[in-house]
Amino acid sequence: MKVSREVPVAAYHAGEGLLPVYQKLVREVVIPYQYQVLDDKMEGVEKSHALENLRLAARKNRGEKVADEFYGMVFQDSDVAKWLEAAAYALGQAPNPELEEKVESLIDLLEEVQQEDGYLNSYFTVKEPGRQWTNLQEAHELYCAGHLMEAACAYYQATGKDRLLKVMEKNADCIYRQFLEKNPRGYSGHPEVELALLRLYRATGKEKYKDLCAHFLDVRGQKPNYFVEEKATRGWNLWSSSSKTVDTDYTQSTLPVREQKDAVGHAVRAVYLYTAMADMAGESGDQGLKDACHALWESVTHRQMYVTGGIGSTVLGEAFTVDYDLPNATVYAETCASIGLIFFARQMLQLETKGEYADVIERALYNTVLGGMQLDGKRFFYVNPLEVVPGISGKAVTQEHDLPQRPPWYACACCPPNVARLLSSIGSYAYGEGDNTLFIHLYLGGEVTSALGYRLSCETEYPRLGSARFTFHGEKETTLAFHVPAWSEKTVLTVNGETWDLSSCARDGYAYVSRVFQEGDVIEIVFDMTPYKVYASSRVPADTGCAAVQRGPVVYCAEGVDNGGDVLSLSLSENGVVREGAYDPQLLGGIVPLEAEGWRTCSSQELYSRKRPQREPEMIHMVPYYTWGNRGENQMRVWLPET
Amino acid sequence: MKVSREVPVAAYHAGEGLLPVYQKLVREVVIPYQYQVLDDKMEGVEKSHALENLRLAARKNRGEKVADEFYGMVFQDSDVAKWLEAAAYALGQAPNPELEEKVESLIDLLEEVQQEDGYLNSYFTVKEPGRQWTNLQEAHELYCAGHLMEAACAYYQATGKDRLLKVMEKNADCIYRQFLEKNPRGYSGHPEVELALLRLYRATGKEKYKDLCAHFLDVRGQKPNYFVEEKATRGWNLWSSSSKTVDTDYTQSTLPVREQKDAVGHAVRAVYLYTAMADMAGESGDQGLKDACHALWESVTHRQMYVTGGIGSTVLGEAFTVDYDLPNATVYAETCASIGLIFFARQMLQLETKGEYADVIERALYNTVLGGMQLDGKRFFYVNPLEVVPGISGKAVTQEHDLPQRPPWYACACCPPNVARLLSSIGSYAYGEGDNTLFIHLYLGGEVTSALGYRLSCETEYPRLGSARFTFHGEKETTLAFHVPAWSEKTVLTVNGETWDLSSCARDGYAYVSRVFQEGDVIEIVFDMTPYKVYASSRVPADTGCAAVQRGPVVYCAEGVDNGGDVLSLSLSENGVVREGAYDPQLLGGIVPLEAEGWRTCSSQELYSRKRPQREPEMIHMVPYYTWGNRGENQMRVWLPET
Repeated sequence: MKVSREVPVAAYHAGEGLLPVYQKLVREVVIPYQYQVLDDKMEGVEKSHALENLRLAARKNRGEKVADEFYGMVFQDSDVAKWLEAAAYALGQAPNPELEEKVESLIDLLEEVQQEDGYLNSYFTVKEPGRQWTNLQEAHELYCAGHLMEAACAYYQATGKDRLLKVMEKNADCIYRQFLEKNPRGYSGHPEVELALLRLYRATGKEKYKDLCAHFLDVRGQKPNYFVEEKATRGWNLWSSSSKTVDTDYTQSTLPVREQKDAVGHAVRAVYLYTAMADMAGESGDQGLKDACHALWESVTHRQMYVTGGIGSTVLGEAFTVDYDLPNATVYAETCASIGLIFFARQMLQLETKGEYADVIERALYNTVLGGMQLDGKRFFYVNPLEVVPGISGKAVTQEHDLPQRPPWYACACCPPNVARLLSSIGSYAYGEGDNTLFIHLYLGGEVTSALGYRLSCETEYPRLGSARFTFHGEKETTLAFHVPAWSEKTVLTVNGETWDLSSCARDGYAYVSRVFQEGDVIEIVFDMTPYKVYASSRVPADTGCAAVQRGPVVYCAEGVDNGGDVLSLSLSENGVVREGAYDPQLLGGIVPLEAEGWRTCSSQELYSRKRPQREPEMIHMVPYYTWGNRGENQMRVWLPET
Repeated sequence: MKVSREVPVAAYHAGEGLLPVYQKLVREVVIPYQYQVLDDKMEGVEKSHALENLRLAARKNRGEKVADEFYGMVFQDSDVAKWLEAAAYALGQAPNPELEEKVESLIDLLEEVQQEDGYLNSYFTVKEPGRQWTNLQEAHELYCAGHLMEAACAYYQATGKDRLLKVMEKNADCIYRQFLEKNPRGYSGHPEVELALLRLYRATGKEKYKDLCAHFLDVRGQKPNYFVEEKATRGWNLWSSSSKTVDTDYTQSTLPVREQKDAVGHAVRAVYLYTAMADMAGESGDQGLKDACHALWESVTHRQMYVTGGIGSTVLGEAFTVDYDLPNATVYAETCASIGLIFFARQMLQLETKGEYADVIERALYNTVLGGMQLDGKRFFYVNPLEVVPGISGKAVTQEHDLPQRPPWYACACCPPNVARLLSSIGSYAYGEGDNTLFIHLYLGGEVTSALGYRLSCETEYPRLGSARFTFHGEKETTLAFHVPAWSEKTVLTVNGETWDLSSCARDGYAYVSRVFQEGDVIEIVFDMTPYKVYASSRVPADTGCAAVQRGPVVYCAEGVDNGGDVLSLSLSENGVVREGAYDPQLLGGIVPLEAEGWRTCSSQELYSRKRPQREPEMIHMVPYYTWGNRGENQMRVWLPET
């Protein structure tokens, strides 16, 4: 069962530091910007049509003749849902009547789109009425429903308003009838509804939603394969028309979930599924699920994860490939996949408090997820390469997906609103509450209110600075458990100025401070922010002979703009020092640049030469990976040869 | 115009050395083996059906009802053609009544397959009668015809028998009528007939075949694009049915040939086309063609060629990608493409005598082409990777084409008979005759007879040893021009024991020895065979921080079997020595292994670690790349990190 649960999003009030700044950016820029895009009001941006699809569906439900057509991906509704969820969190943080009005009118619209029986999906209403639930493999109905359930829970929890929650309960009841009564072998090609049903169960207290989630998990991957049979009989396809076979790995449906040991297939689907599995294991105590989650966690994070927390090595199916296959240039590493990895890690943390899970949250968050968004909040990466060479990246047929610059929007726009909802709910990832224990997983400036009544404020400029100063407000005999990231070689923890011995109070990546806390008690924790090099296992062919550079949880990269345009000729000096540059509040939103002793290889103009290339000492200038590509198209590398 | 022309295949009689051994292997093992495969008599091997297709076509021509069906690729006839060509060369080297009988009965069969008007193609006769010439983009009719023309020329030149030549003249006349009279805008999606027509022109002296070639070159890539129009109107497809667009780069038809500057598209098609362009430039003196050939040569060999002489960086279209994109694991580097590169280089050498062209012939030949065949002559690589990691290679979806072991045959079996015909005709690549000058491009043991009447014998164990001793037979005032490979840092040339000063007699990679040669004159040339490291330009992202090892023209690799199973943890020592091991006649057909001073990195078990991996000095054992994969599945690398 769960050893901790996340705090409500609203329990955290943001203060200073990098993520609070991002949360503010999301609230003030990203959410309004994305609404404009979803409403097709943003000039020069890929058309979304997501709101228009809903309006068309509503008009059709009213019996109007609709001439215009559904436009966009079959899961276009989910963009709206994720935006709604982000907006809900934002409303929980600061009143915003204009935003609230937009949300309310969107809920009006969703009420109009919902059909009598609770069914709610603009694609099927507008474009394929009569084909509901007949293409679970491709059609994302349950996926969209899941995202709307999440939005409903978020809005209810942020505002106490339950209108959308009622809509989605009615929808969940419709799904319950469809899948527990009418078609008990079916489940979603894209997992999401499973984790959403558990949220809905917790928001409403209704066991049937948990049962439905358990059912979806249990039937997945049973033989004969549902999707194979469905495809053979359904007679219509969305996009796999030319292929007669079904890649069951792609949908994680080759095996029953408890038998899955290797992460395979579409990376986002995978981690969304694993999130629900871990959550359910925590709710039910199911040891089989828990064991599978452990195996899958290791498969993902011990053998198939990039140093940036990216997952999914290939564009072919946006998928995992095989262990240790982590190419840096042809990588996929979708932003959404790293977000899903954070979901999975949070659930694993709730099953057992191990710093490893929080370490992965930091790795994915401070690198791939933040890197997925331009610093101005208006452009986004879907794919997050670790090496970019203009002329090859985005150009070679094998790298058409690896763009050297963030576009303003995508036809398939799953990532941008996913970043928005994650960052605006970051408090619920930062803190966990267990049995009279508050876990501090992430270091964010601001204040959290415990369910036990006390408050804990935190002053920190993390990860720019490695120190965090917590002040206790209230009085309580309790335990505070502070995540000690594995990268911190030396951590100092003081309570009211007195240093605690971590060797006795820390275990599994957490420092436990148990005492009768008094108002004004101060806990300070200081991490070792010395920049360091990282080495990949030599089982990873792509990284042999190379090193990456980190400072705290932040992975750095070398960009052309800081290095005379040419990053490919740089190598790190094997015994060279990596130094912090001066914090520059004007540079890339405020960063600590790094300087690494290295070399510039002056290779021959010839393609191949037997002359050993001359090299000269050169200081390599590095910036956080999450800031790359903000200064125009240029070369970028995370892994540099070390010589 | 041409400064030299190849010697006839039969002018060279093989002696000692690596390539002569391969030529013998082809004659004694490969040709009989491949006949068995083509005749579906080889157990446990992918079915060819190539001969059976011809038999079916012959029966259909006789008016028999044929129940069985065409089987295999649309260009299955070309496998037979390439085999015939190889067999012709073999018959020119040694009498073999059994083989000759097979060839003669195949010619009987081809006569029966040929239709009244000269048309000859089993696919269209058996499967698509009535659709001849309607799908030039895909259907390979002209490609198959070209290969049969080459076979006809080879057989005629080897044996003086002109029965097949007559068949193919009749076929060429049919093509002439079709494309100069009926459909003058059409040309082949897969170039080959162009270079074959020039061969046919030289074998028969008939200008019309040269004219037809010139026509095919001239119409290629003209606007509007023929293939785009053909696809829009023809109403049937062979394999691109799902795609509505035509990738004109794939067939090198985006631009007229004289405007092509960058090598694009399917690599084999590209170099076959460039071969014909260079050949035609030499025949006609067309400066526009010559300029295009220079630009394309540089595009291919200065910016898109692997150190092994492989070309074609991606499986997607078996194609070139963009400059400097040379990934080692996901590479395509089809054996046929390197063979075509040798064709192209030979034509460039005939346009101008520059060592660079012969260097590329050596690079492609001694590495990718020889590596394309198992040492026993019975298994073949289509794709020639520079890095193999069992568990990833052949397994990851991005590397399904990069097999760690040679299969015995392929459904698409273009490469095996292509290797056979190249190796059995190697003499015509080794020597060129210009204006009273014999060019020695490649060093092969044996004897060549000049058109001028004298003979030049060569004793050499090249490339195992770097010396070659030539003896002149006859009397002639003439010039012998010896290729001085760019890799030889120090070359000594002696004439009758007297050392010649290369700085005065060598230019552009050739040492010119002009004198009145007497019977028994001896010229010795000794190259520097010291093993050396090679560095790629730092513009090649895949090879930064790495070095490869060569000895003479032979690229070496590290295989697991010689290195404790683990090649990924090896790195070359930056200042380390590379030494020759003792020649081992039993090892891999007789090789000089190399030992390179390097390191074994003992990396952490963790995927990423901030601990600098310990490393220990280790002697890295290397074998010629062309021998890799002959001792079971194991890791293999050409480029190793250098630290």
